Amino acid sequence: MPRSEFQLIQSYFSDPEQVSRPDLILGIGDDCAIVAPREQANLAFSIDTLISGVHFPHDTPPDAVAYKSLAVNLSDLAAMGAEPAWFTLSLTLPEVNHNMPREAWLEKFSQALFSLAREHNMQLIGGDTTRGPLSITIQVSGYLSKNSGMKRGGAKVNDLIVVSGALGAAAMGLDIALQQNEAQYACLCEQEKQQALDALNYPKARVAEGLSLQNIAHSAVDLSDGLISDLGHILKASNVGAELALEKLPLAASLACLDKQSAWEKALSGGDDYELCFTLAEEDWPEVNKKHPNFVVIGIITAQKGLRLLAADGQGSAGQEYKIHTRGYDHFG
Amino acid sequence: MPRSEFQLIQSYFSDPEQVSRPDLILGIGDDCAIVAPREQANLAFSIDTLISGVHFPHDTPPDAVAYKSLAVNLSDLAAMGAEPAWFTLSLTLPEVNHNMPREAWLEKFSQALFSLAREHNMQLIGGDTTRGPLSITIQVSGYLSKNSGMKRGGAKVNDLIVVSGALGAAAMGLDIALQQNEAQYACLCEQEKQQALDALNYPKARVAEGLSLQNIAHSAVDLSDGLISDLGHILKASNVGAELALEKLPLAASLACLDKQSAWEKALSGGDDYELCFTLAEEDWPEVNKKHPNFVVIGIITAQKGLRLLAADGQGSAGQEYKIHTRGYDHFG
Repeated sequence: MPRSEFQLIQSYFSDPEQVSRPDLILGIGDDCAIVAPREQANLAFSIDTLISGVHFPHDTPPDAVAYKSLAVNLSDLAAMGAEPAWFTLSLTLPEVNHNMPREAWLEKFSQALFSLAREHNMQLIGGDTTRGPLSITIQVSGYLSKNSGMKRGGAKVNDLIVVSGALGAAAMGLDIALQQNEAQYACLCEQEKQQALDALNYPKARVAEGLSLQNIAHSAVDLSDGLISDLGHILKASNVGAELALEKLPLAASLACLDKQSAWEKALSGGDDYELCFTLAEEDWPEVNKKHPNFVVIGIITAQKGLRLLAADGQGSAGQEYKIHTRGYDHFG
Repeated sequence: MPRSEFQLIQSYFSDPEQVSRPDLILGIGDDCAIVAPREQANLAFSIDTLISGVHFPHDTPPDAVAYKSLAVNLSDLAAMGAEPAWFTLSLTLPEVNHNMPREAWLEKFSQALFSLAREHNMQLIGGDTTRGPLSITIQVSGYLSKNSGMKRGGAKVNDLIVVSGALGAAAMGLDIALQQNEAQYACLCEQEKQQALDALNYPKARVAEGLSLQNIAHSAVDLSDGLISDLGHILKASNVGAELALEKLPLAASLACLDKQSAWEKALSGGDDYELCFTLAEEDWPEVNKKHPNFVVIGIITAQKGLRLLAADGQGSAGQEYKIHTRGYDHFG
């Protein structure tokens, strides 16, 4: 690592108040980090890149960029039911920032990063800083008990399909951030708009929820690209189909200005919610629901392939089929 | 992961001939990969990003981009003395390539990536593909025995300083690739120029060499940013100084057109060599040299701080001090 780059990282990414994990042997500043993993545990890894202008608007504040970059990775650990442990960061920064001196940007970025890491007892163990268009790649590592891990391929026919919280707020937040489709949020007050923006910029990774589902959920995924797209991964990997009861979709308060159909489309296809979507046996639902009253059953796994969206309250049975016009967000669409 | 992106990754990054490691529980295609690390072992992690136009010229062929992206990370494992195991890839691709359809580019890229991975018994376990300016982030994981790991901070006074091979070829390759400083390579034949380009594009990570030094070297680093810069990390972390005997520097054949001083400057400051630089006790050198006849002693660690470059053959003693005019490559320089 070059000298001034090294200094840069040293100064912003060596937070003295950082978590100090007992399973870390050697942290930032050498050719590799060294960890001593717990015995009798498996490890889960996930890597995600966020690019300015693709995954967040160019003028997103640095603390939101940091928060979201780590949160989307934590969300992958959550969807697997893993316990967060370490992360590495590769940060590509333009030489000149539009809005803010690089030092100020880095300070806000690193503070937000470490603050979220502390919440999850995670330690930054290595990194790379390069010059170029703003992008952030984080790889997270977490612990799993042997034989655990909520895979996409484990859904069973007649499993209930559950989401961990309201949908559609982040997609509305994106419209607000980009000042597009203004009619969709015209009726919201400033505070409600801010809530939608916060859902976009500061998504809550459902780590504790994921951990609590480890030996209960048959399959799980986190909602990054929209319910239809992400649930589709479960259906494909599990070789099953599903029926969703549209009336049961938990709609974010930010969708208040929309008619029912537009709200459903936002909830079904909007990205960046980072709620968990999982399936479980019907008999396990009451116990889970007691612990997590905000979880909502939205449908059922079927032997018949494909995803059917039922407009009336026809969970797993009749109901009028509804055609959805949009689909999940696709970087290469 | 969005649908067509998922298909893209499925088709190019699911090489059926890929290494199939017994310690991998769940590979590409879920929210996380799951591994079951060997018991009683530590793990080493390193992450590096390569950006088009920063770390390699824009018209670098895709197989070279892939090879180098993995090799620079393998080189970090080598410098720690670790045994390669798994890697993750985050690939950011422009929607349109200047030179080649994206499918052809991806096919060449993935073939070269898997070919090098196979050489080192490494398995790709996860990834992320996004749209944007071309950049490649790879995180590698490797095994270390408990209490091993060649750190930067372990150099001792009177240690010999050794490099694992000739220096300066990649820096000359960069001049050739960019068609700059033509006088420096005017005397080379086409084959020699190609060797310099290959040194730049296909650096050999010294993995086996690193493993063999595990319980011998006191400190080690890989030469990514140039000898002065990278050796500087050892000196700083070990709180020591060094004397280098310039006459002993192993100069790459590609430096043949240069006068002695220019060749030294290229060898001292040119980046991308990816040879190992390590220190060890003098009494261990004969045994190491027997096994690795191409390794070269270039200097000695001193109690006196700073790096002194001696122009005559003054290893650890007298010799005329030489001022170097350039320094390591610095992304933010």
